[in-house]
Amino acid sequence: MMASPLSGRELQALDGFLATRSYLCGARPGRLDGEARARVPAAALTDEVPHLRRWFGHLSSWLPAELTAPPPDGLSLERALSAGREEARQQLDGELQRLAALRARLCSGDASDGDVGASNTGGKQRHESSRSAGAGGKLILKTAKGTRDFQPAQMALRERVFASIVETFKRHGAETIDTPVFELREVLTGKYGEDSKLIYDLKDQGGEILSLRYDLTVPFARYVAMNKISSIKRYQIAKVYRRDQPSQARGRYREFYQCDFDIAGSYDPMVPDSECVRIVAEILESLQLGTFVVKVNHRQILDGLFEVCGVPPDQFRSICSAVDKLDKSPWEEVKREMVEEKHLSPEVADRIGHYVKFSGGPELVDTLLKDAALAANKNVSAGLEAMRAFLGYCALYGVGGRVSFDLSLARGLDYYTGVIYEAVLEGGDVGSIAGGGRYDGLVGMFDPKGRSVPCVGVSIGIERLFAIMEARADKADQKVRTTETEVYVCSAQKGLMDERMKLLTTLWDANVKAEQSYKKNPKLLQQLQYCEDHGVPFAVILGESELQRGVVKLRHVATREETEVQRDQLVEVLRAKLAALG
Amino acid sequence: MMASPLSGRELQALDGFLATRSYLCGARPGRLDGEARARVPAAALTDEVPHLRRWFGHLSSWLPAELTAPPPDGLSLERALSAGREEARQQLDGELQRLAALRARLCSGDASDGDVGASNTGGKQRHESSRSAGAGGKLILKTAKGTRDFQPAQMALRERVFASIVETFKRHGAETIDTPVFELREVLTGKYGEDSKLIYDLKDQGGEILSLRYDLTVPFARYVAMNKISSIKRYQIAKVYRRDQPSQARGRYREFYQCDFDIAGSYDPMVPDSECVRIVAEILESLQLGTFVVKVNHRQILDGLFEVCGVPPDQFRSICSAVDKLDKSPWEEVKREMVEEKHLSPEVADRIGHYVKFSGGPELVDTLLKDAALAANKNVSAGLEAMRAFLGYCALYGVGGRVSFDLSLARGLDYYTGVIYEAVLEGGDVGSIAGGGRYDGLVGMFDPKGRSVPCVGVSIGIERLFAIMEARADKADQKVRTTETEVYVCSAQKGLMDERMKLLTTLWDANVKAEQSYKKNPKLLQQLQYCEDHGVPFAVILGESELQRGVVKLRHVATREETEVQRDQLVEVLRAKLAALG
Repeated sequence: MMASPLSGRELQALDGFLATRSYLCGARPGRLDGEARARVPAAALTDEVPHLRRWFGHLSSWLPAELTAPPPDGLSLERALSAGREEARQQLDGELQRLAALRARLCSGDASDGDVGASNTGGKQRHESSRSAGAGGKLILKTAKGTRDFQPAQMALRERVFASIVETFKRHGAETIDTPVFELREVLTGKYGEDSKLIYDLKDQGGEILSLRYDLTVPFARYVAMNKISSIKRYQIAKVYRRDQPSQARGRYREFYQCDFDIAGSYDPMVPDSECVRIVAEILESLQLGTFVVKVNHRQILDGLFEVCGVPPDQFRSICSAVDKLDKSPWEEVKREMVEEKHLSPEVADRIGHYVKFSGGPELVDTLLKDAALAANKNVSAGLEAMRAFLGYCALYGVGGRVSFDLSLARGLDYYTGVIYEAVLEGGDVGSIAGGGRYDGLVGMFDPKGRSVPCVGVSIGIERLFAIMEARADKADQKVRTTETEVYVCSAQKGLMDERMKLLTTLWDANVKAEQSYKKNPKLLQQLQYCEDHGVPFAVILGESELQRGVVKLRHVATREETEVQRDQLVEVLRAKLAALG
Repeated sequence: MMASPLSGRELQALDGFLATRSYLCGARPGRLDGEARARVPAAALTDEVPHLRRWFGHLSSWLPAELTAPPPDGLSLERALSAGREEARQQLDGELQRLAALRARLCSGDASDGDVGASNTGGKQRHESSRSAGAGGKLILKTAKGTRDFQPAQMALRERVFASIVETFKRHGAETIDTPVFELREVLTGKYGEDSKLIYDLKDQGGEILSLRYDLTVPFARYVAMNKISSIKRYQIAKVYRRDQPSQARGRYREFYQCDFDIAGSYDPMVPDSECVRIVAEILESLQLGTFVVKVNHRQILDGLFEVCGVPPDQFRSICSAVDKLDKSPWEEVKREMVEEKHLSPEVADRIGHYVKFSGGPELVDTLLKDAALAANKNVSAGLEAMRAFLGYCALYGVGGRVSFDLSLARGLDYYTGVIYEAVLEGGDVGSIAGGGRYDGLVGMFDPKGRSVPCVGVSIGIERLFAIMEARADKADQKVRTTETEVYVCSAQKGLMDERMKLLTTLWDANVKAEQSYKKNPKLLQQLQYCEDHGVPFAVILGESELQRGVVKLRHVATREETEVQRDQLVEVLRAKLAALG
């Protein structure tokens, strides 16, 4: 049934090789993967070779006929195996360590595991005892690595920002949907190239094989295909999950929010695409984070560029991800990756290096068309004309000045097919705060009949925005109000809780936001202190004498000025005073 | 090191026994669990005995000294093993089937798994091919079992309902927090009794052992302990995850929203507790779902009742969960469970049956105190006095008429320690639509020093409310607007897209919600049709002649009445007309 199955030792080695790679042939599986698959007996896919298993799973969404890409220069199955042997050994050492530690902890009655980071990037592993010393059998108190709780003050800020972003989305006629936090694993398979190793898998507890969503774009494409939607303009604000190395400094977490806006449907070129830039601009302006620029480029231009420079077609994507690093790394490093890791000839790399330096406005289109080599290339010329229209529409939408046509912009993800964008704050190392582009093929990957729905969209890097705003708030140390209580019902003497409760009932019935102390006989000073601490604007003070006279004392907390109000007029008077405060 | 370790065969049998049970001794581990644990070598906890492993993990959060509860009548380790042997065999058969199927699918190039429902309820397994026939290597298009996408119309309804619920929470001075969707598995261990088998575990990809949250209460308690908070009033609206058998009819899903409101802090008895009832009442009234009643009871009264009836102390919780079923099952069935499964003597069961019939208002407190047996019991009398105060406060809060003191209300969860509530709609088989109670011990389970923070809270069963409201909306077939677009910019002739874009820019700059067709030359009729279909109130129509005269045609879509407006006055006029529409 299959050509010379690999030996157990060889399978281990292949597993080691795949521990740090998605496929043998690079970002996408190719011929070599097909050959190797033919030599892996399904029965061999045990827990001992998880990466082999993952790779086999990825491959299952590719038809043998699709596996055509040649391997990177000089890579053969044999070489992969010898390279993998060392990594496999390291892995096994790590695994043995881990189990030994687990055994030790289990003996001490603790079922928790250490933390080895994103361990399917292979090899070395780090361990933490997950018991706080001398805690008498209590658990260590922490959230999962790379995740955090949000305190009331953080939530208050987030709610304001989300509201303003949603307002922008609605100003452009978007509706919203929601999708589950996990998907059938197959839905995510083969969509994220090398990043697939960052996907969180759920444990197989019997039943479907599930993974947490990695972004909102792939589930959206699945939604469009599944519901046979031909056009929709939707936004979605939800959390996504990536087993990346977290970095609080860079605002990178393993659980984080994305704010996505996408337009699906067959329309005239660049019309929805340019509106996405307008939306990004509206949002960033409304948040007043300082000047920003939206870098734009076009996958078709990049592909043509690579043709012109002499990059082998099957390496476009992997060279693309190399170019993508230019915002973080200098050209020399990127060139080294191209030449040493991706086996590109130095001349070809230098030609790419020449072009990716270009950036500018609409005039750049003509500058580039003057380059005979580029102009002669169908992809480049078509892409440049598309870019001309796009930049024109951006100008009409009043965001021409925000846009920079930048040939060094590449975007890592596989699924982009047209225009791509990335917004960055000027003067600051925050990196990209929004990004997106056109992905016309993704929905077709899900539709049983391959019916494709063109899509373009943008995703706001909301966590980075929050990081900036929270830092600012701390600096200015602004006190954020986390409640909206309008009046606090106090009692001046003991034994008046029933009266406070009656008055509260009246206020709540009148839709006034009101609180009281949960103590039967709180001290008046403490009650007033609570108002000051929590920014409650008004306090109602109940006392025996007032009760007898059918009045209450209404105190304006800031000025401490007190007035007597007829009890049956309290609500009106309060409403008026609250309105006056604005 | 340990007394006669169990043999591999015995370990398999024990695993089989635990497949459908949390502990040997019932809902909580006891002596028998301790004995068994002493005979399980840590090294034996392999993947072959997952349930044994789970049990061992649960036990790790209990100190040996805490394992005191005696086993259910007549249960010994030997009996458990013989009972478990059969289940273990069935499990293995199922597992073999599963692997055979997996092997077959892997050979056919499909890495997906079948669906076996909540399989750690053991045994039989069902398989689906997850490839749609002849779909040319495309995936089956579905969301994970028990989950669903929310369409724009559903989201519009949800957002309105969430907003009204949040308004109520804020009227009572609550702030909000957010916690991660997954927690260290230990955090959830030993909190949910027999329901622990419904927890979603994440795959061990190296690093921490994680599970999806099962509710918002346990993460909240973890948050309070971790942040050393002594008092907080917070709400949280978020999704929780349970591997239950989904039932759309009963509005039961595996991913669903919970709306929780909790008050943590040391206060005077029943003051925060009664406010929770007031909040439930405000929410249910605002949603106008019909008349409802909030059943209330007190764990201390139940415990006392069980003492009076002669229930062995270690069976209080398991008898409690039996009583809890009275809202769904007739007394005969519940009695059968008590007698046959939980080995209670029929006389004891009948005594319980006598008392759980009682329900009523504050007068019931006195009625019950007239029962000499009850009055003599410290727990009952203390609980009844607490209930008297609680019902008094509910009356002061204007919700006395909504509350029914009901001795048959028990609530399944382990962690309740005081008053418990459950809201039900009258005349309808919707079941509980809100529930909660006091849990004074939970925070202490997380605090390294065991410092406990008393808590009381309520959780709104929002999905059931949505199910009702969506059914109503369908019946009335109300068309819900899913966008807020105020004006649609149309062109009457070809070649005017640039003009539409300029006008849109003006409108967006003025914060008007505006859209246009993404087609360069759309037909006027189609543009107007779009307005009618999407409930857009106004259309602006651009034509050559109008452009020359510096005016636009403003059309009121509903009346089709058109007026000419000076272009520079369009925004004002629009604002006025929109305000007039309200």
